[in-house]
Amino acid sequence: MNSSPKVPMPTLERLATYLRYLIDLDASHVETISSTDVERQTGINAAQFRKDLSYFGEFGKPGVGYNVSELQARIARILKIDQMQPVIVVGAGNLGSALIGYPGLQEHKFHIAAAFDRDPAKIGRLQNDLVVLDESSLGEVNAKIGARIAILCVPANAAQHVANDAIAAGVRVILNFAPIILKVPERVVVRNVSFLQELAVLSYHLSSEAPAT
Amino acid sequence: MNSSPKVPMPTLERLATYLRYLIDLDASHVETISSTDVERQTGINAAQFRKDLSYFGEFGKPGVGYNVSELQARIARILKIDQMQPVIVVGAGNLGSALIGYPGLQEHKFHIAAAFDRDPAKIGRLQNDLVVLDESSLGEVNAKIGARIAILCVPANAAQHVANDAIAAGVRVILNFAPIILKVPERVVVRNVSFLQELAVLSYHLSSEAPAT
Repeated sequence: MNSSPKVPMPTLERLATYLRYLIDLDASHVETISSTDVERQTGINAAQFRKDLSYFGEFGKPGVGYNVSELQARIARILKIDQMQPVIVVGAGNLGSALIGYPGLQEHKFHIAAAFDRDPAKIGRLQNDLVVLDESSLGEVNAKIGARIAILCVPANAAQHVANDAIAAGVRVILNFAPIILKVPERVVVRNVSFLQELAVLSYHLSSEAPAT
Repeated sequence: MNSSPKVPMPTLERLATYLRYLIDLDASHVETISSTDVERQTGINAAQFRKDLSYFGEFGKPGVGYNVSELQARIARILKIDQMQPVIVVGAGNLGSALIGYPGLQEHKFHIAAAFDRDPAKIGRLQNDLVVLDESSLGEVNAKIGARIAILCVPANAAQHVANDAIAAGVRVILNFAPIILKVPERVVVRNVSFLQELAVLSYHLSSEAPAT
């Protein structure tokens, strides 16, 4: 079972980065890598890479390195993305559409099982082989799908309401793109993706530039 | 000048969250808030809020609270988003289009000055009042615009090349949506937005759920 009690969040985030890199290597038929290769390619230093893996047991062979497809499979298993997982997307605007059509999701075994919107102009339209469903049917539809992951691509003023519905429908983790902080029960985990926040932080860095070049 | 030497990244990130919340309050004509209100609304605790502000001088009046529009203006000034800043977007697919049409950008004084793509089918098309330009003209165009912020919405295999071009054209900070780690000169700051990474981290949390409900 390898139940690693408490893995730090940054380690999990880096594991996802390694996995991304390994998938690319595997696609290019690279068989073995060293931690130095990882450092050169991802910018994460070799010692950190080895430490991150050490939470989960033994990896790699001294003097040989890491077998790419084996390491990929093990990290996927650690992150529980070794089996297809259904995901629902709420909000089928440009952002929702970008996600629905994003090839990387499938690669990481996230299967978008249903997309919802409340705009009558969007409901019933086909998006990447998915028919956009009426948001009000979320509970009913997810009773069949059983998705525990929801991606919210709705405007800020709709997000809390949609989150409540998703949670009532069995969702346990939410990836939230709306620029508000959702209030959720303790058992639910939310990750916020805020590009505005990212931009604001970047903007601050611009100002600390040396004035002369 | 208030030159605060080294403000921690999490503080900057929270400032952006406060700002988002203050903009909404201001739009609803709320005049004054307390740090307890902030805690209730954003989930960030009141003491943390006061500590974050303390890096930048005196804020609020004891027993009265914080003036919403004043605090908003000061945080915007701290984050250097009190004046319109030109931003270029490279990649005008679904994700790029979502960003170009995102109303929050304008609210935060980020002005998308130009959008680029290398796909002939996209070049010349109108997107939210912007004509999509040929990616090869990036240097020439940015010589006029002078944007120092670029948002990359291109596929992973194009991102490094586009980043190089943007940096050569004067870009100093990059918001990168491509799932690769960019190699950039030290003077350039990159923030990565990776929803795959976020999803993978969420997925891990699903597994640590109690099996029985």
